[in-house]
Amino acid sequence: MITCSAPAKIYLFGEHAVVYGEPAIACAAELRTYVTVEPASSTTVVSGGVPTRIETTPYITEALKKIRRIHPIPDVSIQITSDIPTGAGVGSSAALTVALLQALSIEFGVDIDVLQIASMAYDVELSVQGAASQTDTFISTMGGMALMPDRMFLPHLECSIVIGDTNMRGKTSTMVSKVAELKNAYPEVAEHIIKSIGILAQTGVPLLESKDYLGVGRLMNINHGLLESLGVGTFPLSQLVYRARDAGAFGAKITGAGGGGCMVALTDKPEDVIRSIECCYGKAMVVKPAREGVREE
Amino acid sequence: MITCSAPAKIYLFGEHAVVYGEPAIACAAELRTYVTVEPASSTTVVSGGVPTRIETTPYITEALKKIRRIHPIPDVSIQITSDIPTGAGVGSSAALTVALLQALSIEFGVDIDVLQIASMAYDVELSVQGAASQTDTFISTMGGMALMPDRMFLPHLECSIVIGDTNMRGKTSTMVSKVAELKNAYPEVAEHIIKSIGILAQTGVPLLESKDYLGVGRLMNINHGLLESLGVGTFPLSQLVYRARDAGAFGAKITGAGGGGCMVALTDKPEDVIRSIECCYGKAMVVKPAREGVREE
Repeated sequence: MITCSAPAKIYLFGEHAVVYGEPAIACAAELRTYVTVEPASSTTVVSGGVPTRIETTPYITEALKKIRRIHPIPDVSIQITSDIPTGAGVGSSAALTVALLQALSIEFGVDIDVLQIASMAYDVELSVQGAASQTDTFISTMGGMALMPDRMFLPHLECSIVIGDTNMRGKTSTMVSKVAELKNAYPEVAEHIIKSIGILAQTGVPLLESKDYLGVGRLMNINHGLLESLGVGTFPLSQLVYRARDAGAFGAKITGAGGGGCMVALTDKPEDVIRSIECCYGKAMVVKPAREGVREE
Repeated sequence: MITCSAPAKIYLFGEHAVVYGEPAIACAAELRTYVTVEPASSTTVVSGGVPTRIETTPYITEALKKIRRIHPIPDVSIQITSDIPTGAGVGSSAALTVALLQALSIEFGVDIDVLQIASMAYDVELSVQGAASQTDTFISTMGGMALMPDRMFLPHLECSIVIGDTNMRGKTSTMVSKVAELKNAYPEVAEHIIKSIGILAQTGVPLLESKDYLGVGRLMNINHGLLESLGVGTFPLSQLVYRARDAGAFGAKITGAGGGGCMVALTDKPEDVIRSIECCYGKAMVVKPAREGVREE
């Protein structure tokens, strides 16, 4: 029996624009999904203590299918527990897939390294979602913070991450389509906006290297406005973002696809930011940057 | 005794970017400032029924100074009433200056046409504020809607304008400096954003010509996000903007310099939008587009 865990991820910069080849910066966040596997007489899934039919868990079905192409895996019992809000733009499906693949590979002696885990997990997301970014699975596998798609690692964040959850859910594919439709309708405007987001990610690199979090926060605020201009903002997201800024966060923005889901703030006053978010609206969590990616527990 | 009035203006597109040479679209809105002048034994100002010391009215002082350079104007009694919220980004100072100059020119037979009124009013704003846009004074003088700085008139809007007032006040000069500072700190990002705003204005022209207000509204929403990204948004403005959109407005955005002040929505359901804005937050007015600019009452 093996248990592996993998962390959530947040985007400091670049969601949506990364779809169009622009650079992005993503950071692993210390919320984890834990997956325990052991050989069993039939394949079963228990998620958060609840027995779940395997047909309703496409990431698990697809992960088993992919890993079985390179190694025979017998029937397994799969148990999942998770701290990561699901469908909220913080990489819950990537963390599940990565932790599962790693647990299977250790339990059954699959000859595969972590970069191959990341790559296989990406293939799983692609099969399930129809479109996916390498970012989620790479960051969940490797931990830390990196400029993508270059995979250039940046120094670990030395401030707190606050994730605010609107408790509403946007569908990633719907939001990605919405941006694609905007780009189709108004290509010139959309291209400038997308390009601006890419420049923000590049501009953020030296600031993150020099730990200028005030500067990073300012760029995040700009990125938030650009996401609003792409049409993926919502009133609750905007409320949480302004709440966090008003409480003294370095910066705050939507993280992930938007249309609901989560916002993220960087701050050295996490309690103030959490209080400000929770006093009226959403659910807030202070989260440490995750230095480690997928790991055996 | 002569009374002249001049209308407010709203920006459909392009505030802030217009400072950097990008095109903008502004529309006269049927809120007016009324100025009555008549010869008197000394120069006096009564504003909203309240006697006001002339030294505290820089636009009036400066307007008198400028018009006296081309024509002798004796002491005058000046009475002002206004429907336009002041300091809220909807052109109250331009309307005052334009209406006053026109009233003086008619009362005292100054040989000056309306374009010269617009130009002189711009000079007044420039002297008082240190920086100004030709847009406010041109639109207040001429009425209608125009692409600026080209002065290309567009067909009259055939939908309602709703102006929502946060009842907070940002200072235009502070907001303009804030954008300048951002542009200085992150020139490449800021230039893309400013350029995007200019493209929105140009893209809006054919939509306004074909009365595609759904399309215009969508572009206004994009423009709002870009203004947020320039750092001139506030939580109350964001609230009113989302409120208006949720009530079915074609589009909604900050109008004017931001940091407080007003937002504007285009809609064919003005009552719904007003109810939505007023139920919780700001003050809302439904305003007709003003076809006429400055006029004698």
